Amino acid sequence: MKILIVGASGTLGQAVAQHLGQHHDVVTAGRRSGDHRVDLTDDASVHALFQQTGLLDAVIATTGQLHFGPLQDMTAAQFNSGLQDKLLGQVRLALAAQHHLRAGGSITLTSGIVSAQPISDGSNATAVNAGLEGFVRAAACELVARGLRINVVSPTVLQESAVAYAPYFPGFEPAAASRVALAYQRAVEGIQSGQTLTVW
Amino acid sequence: MKILIVGASGTLGQAVAQHLGQHHDVVTAGRRSGDHRVDLTDDASVHALFQQTGLLDAVIATTGQLHFGPLQDMTAAQFNSGLQDKLLGQVRLALAAQHHLRAGGSITLTSGIVSAQPISDGSNATAVNAGLEGFVRAAACELVARGLRINVVSPTVLQESAVAYAPYFPGFEPAAASRVALAYQRAVEGIQSGQTLTVW
Repeated sequence: MKILIVGASGTLGQAVAQHLGQHHDVVTAGRRSGDHRVDLTDDASVHALFQQTGLLDAVIATTGQLHFGPLQDMTAAQFNSGLQDKLLGQVRLALAAQHHLRAGGSITLTSGIVSAQPISDGSNATAVNAGLEGFVRAAACELVARGLRINVVSPTVLQESAVAYAPYFPGFEPAAASRVALAYQRAVEGIQSGQTLTVW
Repeated sequence: MKILIVGASGTLGQAVAQHLGQHHDVVTAGRRSGDHRVDLTDDASVHALFQQTGLLDAVIATTGQLHFGPLQDMTAAQFNSGLQDKLLGQVRLALAAQHHLRAGGSITLTSGIVSAQPISDGSNATAVNAGLEGFVRAAACELVARGLRINVVSPTVLQESAVAYAPYFPGFEPAAASRVALAYQRAVEGIQSGQTLTVW
């Protein structure tokens, strides 16, 4: 399969690219690195990406910024930054990707455990991740008629990031990025659609 | 209790205002009608609203526009219109409301059955409603330390709107707005927080 991974330079994206690269033709993209440059907050940039990649069998997003901060001080603009970057960014990629997939193709997005398990300063993260999971749940129902699939992987905190984020994830069991990468393989090579694949 | 209802001129808002008005001091607000005018897409307008209302015991939102349309033709801008109006609008109200509630006060937002049960043309609605439910799940965890509560009511299609929307809700059991209004009473007068109160 020819698989595009957007966000492939991140800790998780690297692991997904390495894992899927063993058996597939992986094309990488990112804001500042990868085979192609793309800014998921910009329609024209996403359009240009797919002009460059041509038809694909799978599109994966392992990218997106969130706002972290106390609810008490949060502004609507701060909350919106996470909506625009991680939520709308991944949705924009998916909306474009649906027109550049071969028959049987799939889209796989990335949410996170905070969707189900709130953490301090994380109300934007919970909302954005839950919104992504909702989008996937509904979009799958429309894509099925066209033979396409969409899923979302919800990882726990990564082992590689666990030290830096430890105070925010008390008692959370970290997972190695290489283990989380298996869920993307399940999404790409499997048959399910509309699912949130939790790795926790 | 002194209760602010934003979106009080809508079918649902009217029913909530009438039901809660029997035992509480209800103040209404809306884009074009009510005791106060407010535009939930505008920080300054929301700020001005709370300057006018003074301290409150409960804030309820029964408002917000979504984008409905086929996934195949959907643009990121269309998807964003629902994020900005219903999701960020209600979140903006909640972020401001937390600073204008008396001890023991509560916030009650409104999602919808489509969060859990996707419908045709409804991928934006599912994402927005799921995002609202996520926000409430996380915000409740931070508000508890300050003695405040937040919940969200998820109604099925209203009996009053069922004829107009019937093709989109095959086999959905409508509920009268007066019945859905009971869930807002449960949220306001009850003790729970972080909950999605489904009326379906």
